[in-house]
Amino acid sequence: MPQQLLRVQSFAVSRDGFGAGEGQSLERPFGHADPAALFAWRAATASFVYRTEPGGTRGLDDYLTRDYDRNIGAEIMGRNKFGPQRGPWENHDWQGWWGDNPPFHVPVFVLTHHERPSFTLADTTFHFLDASPAEALKRAKQAADGRDVRLGGGVATIREFLEADLVDEMHIAVAPVDLGRGERLWESHHELLDRFHLESVPSPSGVTHLLFWRR
Amino acid sequence: MPQQLLRVQSFAVSRDGFGAGEGQSLERPFGHADPAALFAWRAATASFVYRTEPGGTRGLDDYLTRDYDRNIGAEIMGRNKFGPQRGPWENHDWQGWWGDNPPFHVPVFVLTHHERPSFTLADTTFHFLDASPAEALKRAKQAADGRDVRLGGGVATIREFLEADLVDEMHIAVAPVDLGRGERLWESHHELLDRFHLESVPSPSGVTHLLFWRR
Repeated sequence: MPQQLLRVQSFAVSRDGFGAGEGQSLERPFGHADPAALFAWRAATASFVYRTEPGGTRGLDDYLTRDYDRNIGAEIMGRNKFGPQRGPWENHDWQGWWGDNPPFHVPVFVLTHHERPSFTLADTTFHFLDASPAEALKRAKQAADGRDVRLGGGVATIREFLEADLVDEMHIAVAPVDLGRGERLWESHHELLDRFHLESVPSPSGVTHLLFWRR
Repeated sequence: MPQQLLRVQSFAVSRDGFGAGEGQSLERPFGHADPAALFAWRAATASFVYRTEPGGTRGLDDYLTRDYDRNIGAEIMGRNKFGPQRGPWENHDWQGWWGDNPPFHVPVFVLTHHERPSFTLADTTFHFLDASPAEALKRAKQAADGRDVRLGGGVATIREFLEADLVDEMHIAVAPVDLGRGERLWESHHELLDRFHLESVPSPSGVTHLLFWRR
């Protein structure tokens, strides 16, 4: 049986290392950052998950975008990716940002200190876990049924899993924008090079794809 | 229903435009060309189909290699890819280069003026068609059941489908080797730029990935 990997896919950061701006809220999930500046490269591709018109690019950015769900059997995300609430749930009305048909199509494990019942939207079931990264990964791998697990972010969650040395592969897209403040993924990606191989691939769209895999 | 594309994937050519050398035979499927020089980039990746040891790179070359069968429902190949024989079949003993478990796992349509009965090896069925490119593509799209069709080569077959303007997307890996003679894909890839967008992406491995998609 092939090894099950934990993969970060198509995660965007600014040139100065931020995955989201300051002041995240319901109205501004990325805080003061303009999401378009971080994600324009992906939105331009033919395989962009929310594309409604035909067309779109089929170059390098598209190859990376369309790999997002290849051989993925589960996702782990932090609570800050799931929603803008912090602390105990006031109720369970919030079901994520993604409407009735979330773009995951696999079990999603939301890490939170405040558990709540699982629920299903279309073919995506959300589970809520108060667990360590290693425990969460074990649960997600069981659910993934032999396939890989995607680590969906946000920044704090990726940092935790990096710290626990659980990440096998990571695709980070560095967008040509500076944010100055917010949720920081790293001071410099060089801090990872003792543990990861790295290829840095500039795209004609202006982003630079950083492809990490475990040494 | 999304459009069904005809895609060329991971097709290797020399710097001077040859996909195979001169003098193809049972012993030398690529003629005087050393296949290792054309395919080393792919063989080094974690996703290489014939990899037997764990490991392998997970950078740019791997992303392109692992896209080889994503959303592919059928393959079309020329007879020269299927085997070294030319002219009428002396018998039907030859079942391709790939042993008992061919790496296709979808219906394969072999274009030939000399038809023979279909046969199945593991989960790959080979069909033999004396048909125009447009007719063959129609058959393959039916068999692909909504998924894309891969155009497997060799060179003459890709040229025919380009000439008939049936190719939607094409990934050509230019290997850092000159062959001087053999089966030529193009004089220069610039001859395609009136019909295709192109991104040229150099890989740390030394190959350059040319990514074409229809304008």
